[in-house]
Amino acid sequence: MSANDKTGKKPWSGRFAEPATGLVQRFTASVAFDRRLAVFDIEASLAHARMLQAAGIIGQADLAAIEKGLAQIRSEIDAGAFAWSDAYEDVHFNIERRLIELAGEPGKRLHTARSRNDQVATDLRLFLRAAIDQVAALIRSVQRALLDLADEHAETVMPGYTHLQVAQPVTFGHHLLAYFEMFARDAQRLADCRRRVNRLPLGAAALAGTSFPIDRQRVAKELGFDGVCENSIDAVSDRDFAIEFAACAALVMTHLSRFCEEIIIWANPRFGFVEIADGFSTGSSIMPQKRNPDVAELIRGKTGRVNGHLVALLTLMKGQPLAYNRDNQEDKEPLFDVVDTLTACLAVFAEMLGGIKVQREAMAAAARQGHATATDLAEYLVRKGVAFREAHEAVAQAVRFAESRNCELAELKLAELQRFSSRIAQDVYDALTLEGSLKSRSHIGGTAPVRVKAAIAKARKSLG
Amino acid sequence: MSANDKTGKKPWSGRFAEPATGLVQRFTASVAFDRRLAVFDIEASLAHARMLQAAGIIGQADLAAIEKGLAQIRSEIDAGAFAWSDAYEDVHFNIERRLIELAGEPGKRLHTARSRNDQVATDLRLFLRAAIDQVAALIRSVQRALLDLADEHAETVMPGYTHLQVAQPVTFGHHLLAYFEMFARDAQRLADCRRRVNRLPLGAAALAGTSFPIDRQRVAKELGFDGVCENSIDAVSDRDFAIEFAACAALVMTHLSRFCEEIIIWANPRFGFVEIADGFSTGSSIMPQKRNPDVAELIRGKTGRVNGHLVALLTLMKGQPLAYNRDNQEDKEPLFDVVDTLTACLAVFAEMLGGIKVQREAMAAAARQGHATATDLAEYLVRKGVAFREAHEAVAQAVRFAESRNCELAELKLAELQRFSSRIAQDVYDALTLEGSLKSRSHIGGTAPVRVKAAIAKARKSLG
Amino acid sequence: MSANDKTGKKPWSGRFAEPATGLVQRFTASVAFDRRLAVFDIEASLAHARMLQAAGIIGQADLAAIEKGLAQIRSEIDAGAFAWSDAYEDVHFNIERRLIELAGEPGKRLHTARSRNDQVATDLRLFLRAAIDQVAALIRSVQRALLDLADEHAETVMPGYTHLQVAQPVTFGHHLLAYFEMFARDAQRLADCRRRVNRLPLGAAALAGTSFPIDRQRVAKELGFDGVCENSIDAVSDRDFAIEFAACAALVMTHLSRFCEEIIIWANPRFGFVEIADGFSTGSSIMPQKRNPDVAELIRGKTGRVNGHLVALLTLMKGQPLAYNRDNQEDKEPLFDVVDTLTACLAVFAEMLGGIKVQREAMAAAARQGHATATDLAEYLVRKGVAFREAHEAVAQAVRFAESRNCELAELKLAELQRFSSRIAQDVYDALTLEGSLKSRSHIGGTAPVRVKAAIAKARKSLG
Amino acid sequence: MSANDKTGKKPWSGRFAEPATGLVQRFTASVAFDRRLAVFDIEASLAHARMLQAAGIIGQADLAAIEKGLAQIRSEIDAGAFAWSDAYEDVHFNIERRLIELAGEPGKRLHTARSRNDQVATDLRLFLRAAIDQVAALIRSVQRALLDLADEHAETVMPGYTHLQVAQPVTFGHHLLAYFEMFARDAQRLADCRRRVNRLPLGAAALAGTSFPIDRQRVAKELGFDGVCENSIDAVSDRDFAIEFAACAALVMTHLSRFCEEIIIWANPRFGFVEIADGFSTGSSIMPQKRNPDVAELIRGKTGRVNGHLVALLTLMKGQPLAYNRDNQEDKEPLFDVVDTLTACLAVFAEMLGGIKVQREAMAAAARQGHATATDLAEYLVRKGVAFREAHEAVAQAVRFAESRNCELAELKLAELQRFSSRIAQDVYDALTLEGSLKSRSHIGGTAPVRVKAAIAKARKSLG
Repeated sequence: MSANDKTGKKPWSGRFAEPATGLVQRFTASVAFDRRLAVFDIEASLAHARMLQAAGIIGQADLAAIEKGLAQIRSEIDAGAFAWSDAYEDVHFNIERRLIELAGEPGKRLHTARSRNDQVATDLRLFLRAAIDQVAALIRSVQRALLDLADEHAETVMPGYTHLQVAQPVTFGHHLLAYFEMFARDAQRLADCRRRVNRLPLGAAALAGTSFPIDRQRVAKELGFDGVCENSIDAVSDRDFAIEFAACAALVMTHLSRFCEEIIIWANPRFGFVEIADGFSTGSSIMPQKRNPDVAELIRGKTGRVNGHLVALLTLMKGQPLAYNRDNQEDKEPLFDVVDTLTACLAVFAEMLGGIKVQREAMAAAARQGHATATDLAEYLVRKGVAFREAHEAVAQAVRFAESRNCELAELKLAELQRFSSRIAQDVYDALTLEGSLKSRSHIGGTAPVRVKAAIAKARKSLG
Repeated sequence: MSANDKTGKKPWSGRFAEPATGLVQRFTASVAFDRRLAVFDIEASLAHARMLQAAGIIGQADLAAIEKGLAQIRSEIDAGAFAWSDAYEDVHFNIERRLIELAGEPGKRLHTARSRNDQVATDLRLFLRAAIDQVAALIRSVQRALLDLADEHAETVMPGYTHLQVAQPVTFGHHLLAYFEMFARDAQRLADCRRRVNRLPLGAAALAGTSFPIDRQRVAKELGFDGVCENSIDAVSDRDFAIEFAACAALVMTHLSRFCEEIIIWANPRFGFVEIADGFSTGSSIMPQKRNPDVAELIRGKTGRVNGHLVALLTLMKGQPLAYNRDNQEDKEPLFDVVDTLTACLAVFAEMLGGIKVQREAMAAAARQGHATATDLAEYLVRKGVAFREAHEAVAQAVRFAESRNCELAELKLAELQRFSSRIAQDVYDALTLEGSLKSRSHIGGTAPVRVKAAIAKARKSLG
Repeated sequence: MSANDKTGKKPWSGRFAEPATGLVQRFTASVAFDRRLAVFDIEASLAHARMLQAAGIIGQADLAAIEKGLAQIRSEIDAGAFAWSDAYEDVHFNIERRLIELAGEPGKRLHTARSRNDQVATDLRLFLRAAIDQVAALIRSVQRALLDLADEHAETVMPGYTHLQVAQPVTFGHHLLAYFEMFARDAQRLADCRRRVNRLPLGAAALAGTSFPIDRQRVAKELGFDGVCENSIDAVSDRDFAIEFAACAALVMTHLSRFCEEIIIWANPRFGFVEIADGFSTGSSIMPQKRNPDVAELIRGKTGRVNGHLVALLTLMKGQPLAYNRDNQEDKEPLFDVVDTLTACLAVFAEMLGGIKVQREAMAAAARQGHATATDLAEYLVRKGVAFREAHEAVAQAVRFAESRNCELAELKLAELQRFSSRIAQDVYDALTLEGSLKSRSHIGGTAPVRVKAAIAKARKSLG
Repeated sequence: MSANDKTGKKPWSGRFAEPATGLVQRFTASVAFDRRLAVFDIEASLAHARMLQAAGIIGQADLAAIEKGLAQIRSEIDAGAFAWSDAYEDVHFNIERRLIELAGEPGKRLHTARSRNDQVATDLRLFLRAAIDQVAALIRSVQRALLDLADEHAETVMPGYTHLQVAQPVTFGHHLLAYFEMFARDAQRLADCRRRVNRLPLGAAALAGTSFPIDRQRVAKELGFDGVCENSIDAVSDRDFAIEFAACAALVMTHLSRFCEEIIIWANPRFGFVEIADGFSTGSSIMPQKRNPDVAELIRGKTGRVNGHLVALLTLMKGQPLAYNRDNQEDKEPLFDVVDTLTACLAVFAEMLGGIKVQREAMAAAARQGHATATDLAEYLVRKGVAFREAHEAVAQAVRFAESRNCELAELKLAELQRFSSRIAQDVYDALTLEGSLKSRSHIGGTAPVRVKAAIAKARKSLG
């Protein structure tokens, strides 16, 4: 290594008269965060070098030296012994510089037929592919936890709310399956996104391709890509795959935020529907009695973070002329934080689900309050021949009457109920019970316990 | 119809003591915008009514009256003769009220076994499915326009920019194909989204399903859905399909914004790469000489609008407890505006592409400025045996020398070039021409004219 | 008016060979929404014309004809009789064209020394200034409604929540005053924003000013501006004042969303803290018993809308080169919708507050559940000489003990309490009552009824 | 310190049966980022302790021990020797725990009459106040750099663009002053925001205040606050001051992004208006000739980041019930990153401005292309008595004629010009020169060199 190199000379600085100031160096360096791509950078460099050798662009000895050097670098990084430096801007130059140090001349041949533009796009896609696989596995964990809880509560009655007002009785198992469906779509979306992520940009070089006889298919195959990016300019300049991932992540967070909102409400003592395990609650520095659903609150709050990163990435790409612009260095931190936030939230959420203690009696008591079976009465009247709109009207009057008596519909006497429709008979009370209401909703997607159990079985099968 | 009804009595108002004030009525009414769903609302009501009859829930005569009434309503709406009223809140009540007026008792039976919650979710999905199909067709138009222009310019040389600095020569056709790829991914994303949109919520009723023996598969089939929503609570409460669409749209707009940015820069007289047809330019109220690329600017600006709607929808859903909350009424206006913005931008963009006049000579002149073939010189040296990193350094010095002489690399004499590497010979001038540079990048994804033509052919085939 | 003019010839079309297509005309026309600025456009034109005359740029007869024509146009617009047309692009050309029709030659002199660029910036600022004044008045209405309710409930005890878990008793009046403070800051922010809005751009013309001897101060004074924009390029190209307003609006909506969230939770039957007036609730199309807090839900939902518009405007301006670009036509619709949303939400919210019925007993019952005075016990111990951190620990043990007994702290016997600290004496029960707890927090900002009443008095004074 | 404490027992864990798992501990701990508040936490603790002593709540010896302990902690932190631990959640507990270790019993008294809720709100406001002061100073640096450059170029002619098309000649100094105005408003906005930030929350305790006889005014005065938060619930639960700051920051970034976009375009060789100092450019790993305006691109890109954080914070607060919820822990990282991004961008931008080399001739050449004085011709005709709208039309025809002759307006012969208006005389050529055009725009805000110089003088004065 020359003296020049020791002072942090950039691989591209041959042409420049004045050196960058420390301020600019710190401002533009990305190695503090993009070093996270090191493992993927090395993996891609190995595949690139092997292709270069197979195509006769570098020699067998060059390849051997490169492989040895990169293996060494890999173990230095794993051991935390690699000397990262802002002076070498980014993960790519840091590794290349060290490779030249270790391997000499052959190291200087590695960058043949590629550019940092296609290199970073490749690294980012490898990173994101791995991240998607990890997220997908965590979503499945959450789904399994939901199914386990739903299994236990396929018959547990709770008030189904719309507008946070009592609507109709549902089972808690059924309620949980709603989330199962949301996460199933999230998983599907990520799988779709993965197909678009999993394309090889390498070979695009700076933007125009290269004059060397490269074999992109070979590199794609070795790295497990489904194919190559079909246009070199597009390959280095678009980040839509990252934005798509962030949008998928924002939806996962949105779904988590809804469940967390419910947990927070349910854990309030007025509800008392659930108790969160101590390990997932925290206390107060001043109020000794507190047991706060902090984990749920934090997850709800972190939704903003992921939405924000999505906006950051969209704003970043808006109006950028082709091809690569340095603006795109800003794609990494938001993306990394989306991945970290999402995986942490899913992992802790799955565990929290496992520790939820359901207070069946509180749920049932809440379901008995608020005329939850009023719709059943209307449907009863329809079955007796009343047109639905009239049945609805009649029941509305009955509810008003019950409220004036300060009682629930099911507590009205038959004669009282008959004031609102002469078709009401003794069998009306079957329709007015929570159990009767639940049982009657047995079609596909309905809340009847038997249907919920079938849905659980189907869902388990879909998870494999 | 009773006098009460004529004063705008709500179908649900039987229970309430006081009427809504005008202020509240205006604040909560959605018919001013959701009437746009009318055609889908009627379509879904017809399928629902036919299923109710087939399942024996309503009679044959009921069905006939409903069909006749809805047909009448449909033609009133088409003719602009339908009397929409805020007093009936939304599109659903407006149509139901009119149906009862026209069909009497049978009209009152239509709402059996459904709720506005599953009804509006169904309407919205039908609307969005149609919108996706329209957007997909428009994207194909844009892609075809790109291919036509690329065909013409498969050999037109232009400076490929990175950082808006001259990087390497590319062909204009190659540049256009980068956008073809972006829009191809956009189309694929929308097709993936469509599969998630195309599920039937109807049958979920308010949130719990219904006690009537409904046949959801039948309704799904009649309405062209791929299947039914598997959980009733999820069916009425999630809008992730709409958010996913908005995210797809934001990416389309991002891609359009990049092309428009380029057009705006290219149309500046310093560039003069393109001339936009008069029909797509506008003038100034004060500067008589102006010919402004207003269409491109407006499209670029509208990107913000779509990003904003995406944020609106994500914010809307964050932390909502299950099931349906009135917040979700706010899903429609952003979604409608996303669809309108996207379709208008794609349509006008496709036409604008057709009217672009390319100034070949200006493009070529720009490519000859800025040492566009410096990389070719480095690659030449590598082929002569120099390690890439050293070749890069040597060329950087040569560029600096050329700049001090105020000339381009290709204008240096052989002896001058040889100062920087003794391996340089007379054949170097082949590598330094724009044509030589282009021709040499002939691998998959490269910018060589022959490869560009092959890519166009492949792209045409993919469009069918 | 020539035949050409009748076919919608643009004022700037003299130079163009081909006319705009219908598609482009529809795409670029803004008159459908910017006609809302008409009243401000006329007001500004009048001030401009009077200055032109005073400066000798147009004649007295010109001015008289212009004034007469604009008065006529104003009354045509007020009467809904003005013939707006997309063919004349925007509100400015529509009015100018009609003025020329009415006033002839003098009408053609009005546009002297101005451009649409400074004209629209002026109109927009006049519009926004009026909007801010309206919003400010509505915020004061909300604040007054809060004070009226707080007055009534200065002693009404409720559980103060953190993490939606019972923390300490507070008065409902105190809780309401928290919102008073938020809206006070919102009002202050808007007043600050108004100062930046209230500057005159007119005179900047297209971007460079004009060669006519204009008197900008005179125009500023006539239109009530605090001063003139000091740089012509800045005057026509920045929209930061609009973005600042949108950011202020987003904070108002955020504050409203928090109150609405609370109302929705409080109206749930498990809480039953408040009852919303019938006029502010709506029913269900299927569940006859429902009384939904739709107004609160809609306001909460509309927060997304305003946040979205803020993002739209920020995205719009990002990276725009100076001076005016057509992108900025996109500033109006989001801004108008922010104003409409904000004013509607504030107006309906103020009315809704007036109709809220507070259930004192439910609030008090909730405050007695969850050891709300545990902190008071800790503070009691500190007053007895225990270090706070140890007092906190002792009380935590006591709470755990009470929970194991299934009772509240205040229900433990003295001997039981003394297990956790020997310093506890009979007077501890004073600290453990809700009333004692409230009364003791009497410093500035505290929840003691006497302090709440003083805060209300101070707040009333601040409103004037 | 007890053995228990060494295993990381939380100050609030007395009540809990099960400990938090490692996963939850990592998920909820904030000390990794909130330790940045340590200096402010200590400052606020000192003021709090002194007040406690003055109010007789703790003793003189307690205070002395606390002061000594905190001084020791401060120097440990400054020396990087403080042992931060996730096991103690956040900056507050880490410091309190160490204080107890160092000071014993008195350390346990420090948390009397406060809570982490008011403590963190206080720390955050102290942090933000300092950040605003730093940002304000950096904005002034940028403004000074703009004035210095403007001074040099008060007469340098450049093409003023609208729609990136040549509009009218302006001076480069005038163009720079447009940015001066933008940053002046930014500075004003931050000053307004500072007043709202600079209020003391301490004394609000958890949410309800405290039963100790605290003196909030004294603490406010010692910490330099303008006053106290008037309501305890508001004090701990709102973060609007942070959101307002983020919105101000987004506008600063928007202004920077516009200038950076211009620099990037101007540095393109087709423009060649400016050359960026080598120290602010970077090279390419593959293209040896590149000199990229990376700093400008990165600043432009970072706009997305700040917009994203604004969205994150708004999303975070939306719909949160009072008072403090753990969601708010998520306020810190976005806020810190906004501050860091803003200060770095302003600092590097101010330096970059100093290194810009302006190519006067390239600017002037560009101004001579595109009929920049067409408006001057129209204004000339108006001065000769033609109505503006007709003058505009005549000039449009003249421009079209010049274009057909492939020349500029000023190059047309007098006879040719007279085809378009008989009022044109020899003196027209004065109006058609760039210098004549500039000179004539001398009103307030205009681009005439004499006016630009006056504006610079006024601006310098405003900076003090």
